[in-house]
Amino acid sequence: VIDIVIDFGGTNIKIGLISDGNILSQTRLPAYSENGILPRLPKVVEAITELLQTNAYMPDQCSGIGIALPGLVDPEAKTLLSINEKYADAVGFEFDRWAQDVFHLPIVIENDARAALIGEISYGSARGETDAVLIIFGTGIGTAAIMNGRVLRGKHQQAGVLGGHFSTDVHGETCNCGNLGCLEAQASHRMLSNKVKHDPLYPKSMLRDSESIGYQTIIDSYESDDPLSSRLLEDMLVHWSAGIVNLIHAYDPETVILSGGLMKSAHIILPLLEERVLRSAWTPWGKVRFILAKEPDASVLLGMSSLLQSARKQGGIHIEFI
Amino acid sequence: VIDIVIDFGGTNIKIGLISDGNILSQTRLPAYSENGILPRLPKVVEAITELLQTNAYMPDQCSGIGIALPGLVDPEAKTLLSINEKYADAVGFEFDRWAQDVFHLPIVIENDARAALIGEISYGSARGETDAVLIIFGTGIGTAAIMNGRVLRGKHQQAGVLGGHFSTDVHGETCNCGNLGCLEAQASHRMLSNKVKHDPLYPKSMLRDSESIGYQTIIDSYESDDPLSSRLLEDMLVHWSAGIVNLIHAYDPETVILSGGLMKSAHIILPLLEERVLRSAWTPWGKVRFILAKEPDASVLLGMSSLLQSARKQGGIHIEFI
Repeated sequence: VIDIVIDFGGTNIKIGLISDGNILSQTRLPAYSENGILPRLPKVVEAITELLQTNAYMPDQCSGIGIALPGLVDPEAKTLLSINEKYADAVGFEFDRWAQDVFHLPIVIENDARAALIGEISYGSARGETDAVLIIFGTGIGTAAIMNGRVLRGKHQQAGVLGGHFSTDVHGETCNCGNLGCLEAQASHRMLSNKVKHDPLYPKSMLRDSESIGYQTIIDSYESDDPLSSRLLEDMLVHWSAGIVNLIHAYDPETVILSGGLMKSAHIILPLLEERVLRSAWTPWGKVRFILAKEPDASVLLGMSSLLQSARKQGGIHIEFI
Repeated sequence: VIDIVIDFGGTNIKIGLISDGNILSQTRLPAYSENGILPRLPKVVEAITELLQTNAYMPDQCSGIGIALPGLVDPEAKTLLSINEKYADAVGFEFDRWAQDVFHLPIVIENDARAALIGEISYGSARGETDAVLIIFGTGIGTAAIMNGRVLRGKHQQAGVLGGHFSTDVHGETCNCGNLGCLEAQASHRMLSNKVKHDPLYPKSMLRDSESIGYQTIIDSYESDDPLSSRLLEDMLVHWSAGIVNLIHAYDPETVILSGGLMKSAHIILPLLEERVLRSAWTPWGKVRFILAKEPDASVLLGMSSLLQSARKQGGIHIEFI
């Protein structure tokens, strides 16, 4: 059986075909998420059709479509409840009907970070972990948590996934979620451009030559000793590590799973992050273990496949929630 | 059956006799917690004995002793795992043996804020709530959470209770737990004295006439239009509300239960706090409801009695954990 999985990210829409935890084929489209999701759906259908054809799969070999979205998702009502900025028109959209109309397939739907956690626990480098938090550094900052083998969803489906919207700096920026000084407002990929361009060091920084500024540009310039980039990275590390300590203090995990595009630079980031977190976290029982996602770009897709499998009760995958 | 319950607070040790959720009798001793717990135990025994005698109860009418402690408690090993500053000598102390030696009674032991949550849910104003967070403003700031009817304990017994140690200001004070800018380091009763005395407005403030400075002094002076007290209260409200928003974002509750000494001033604090939290919390499903503890001074004691009842499987009280 083949699962069709879609990860609607803030920057890219990733699409994959997965069977039994193996990614058979994968593609990506630019998201243009500020324009909404509906204008992109025809391209998504095209990309899926092409992916199936190229690999000589028939739609009737597919079991269903797994859809991951940023923001607050209701997996039972199969829709998006709320989102900040990106894909505003996806709130309340009937993904179920869309998938039925176009592919005659059922869907499962989940928050992207929660899917990433499920992916890493089912097929990735955190297989079998029962008490863990995940933080995924994509366009925004997503989080998820599992306690005693149960993935946190909560009363209104939003437990665990709002770690990017804990205040880490009450005197900081207003976040587009309405809260003050959220981690995501202080240290996410998508907030960098704004922050950088108002900095007095900017006119003399290497970053001036970059067309667009994000995690990767900062890290590249940091490695070339650009002073502004060093300061920005230092500042982000302060926030990232505070954010991870807050997750540890909230959910009492044994392991912290790191995923997302930023983890391409794990060799630089991870040691710095780990040192700070371990210094600050109050864990008298021992030290939290850090795990890197097996394929940071694919955690979400694998999670959606795992959820499809769990929904059709095949393959021994059964995910419990609280 | 009568439960003996003890709440080892940072400022006072509260002792009570409780039967079926009714407080039969209650007393308190100064804690002198900076000197440790062991020097206070003889006084605690004396106070319990006196309480029993005054009320003409015999020790064999008592079912057990419920002991609430600040810090990280292991309810299974029946000891304290870790604490910041107060009662340092209680870590690893065998409360079990002490209670057996002195009263020939079994014990239950729990973190004070978690006990307060259990107290309010079993006997207080949050009876029957299944998805709630509690924040208790005592000497420090304690928190606890319940999700889907299960009180959070977590893998290492520390889930839910470290809400006072989420960073709300990465550029703030170093907390005595080792973390940076914890809510408790920024806006707790016990941090006030230090903060106030270094303020340039202090020499001209009403607060100069106070022997000791805490929540109550600030609120009294605020009501008399003292400018320093207004600013301090405003600053604490910023932190308290960020702390509560973080709890809402972490545990997805329907209700926020407020307890502790500060709630004597609930008529002033609650409207200000509620307005800020509701403005900042990301809860597309609706509005979190605020509940005041029935008796802010007794939440913890009632919780310990509820835990004793649950342990001896009487009275229909059964507490589930995750």
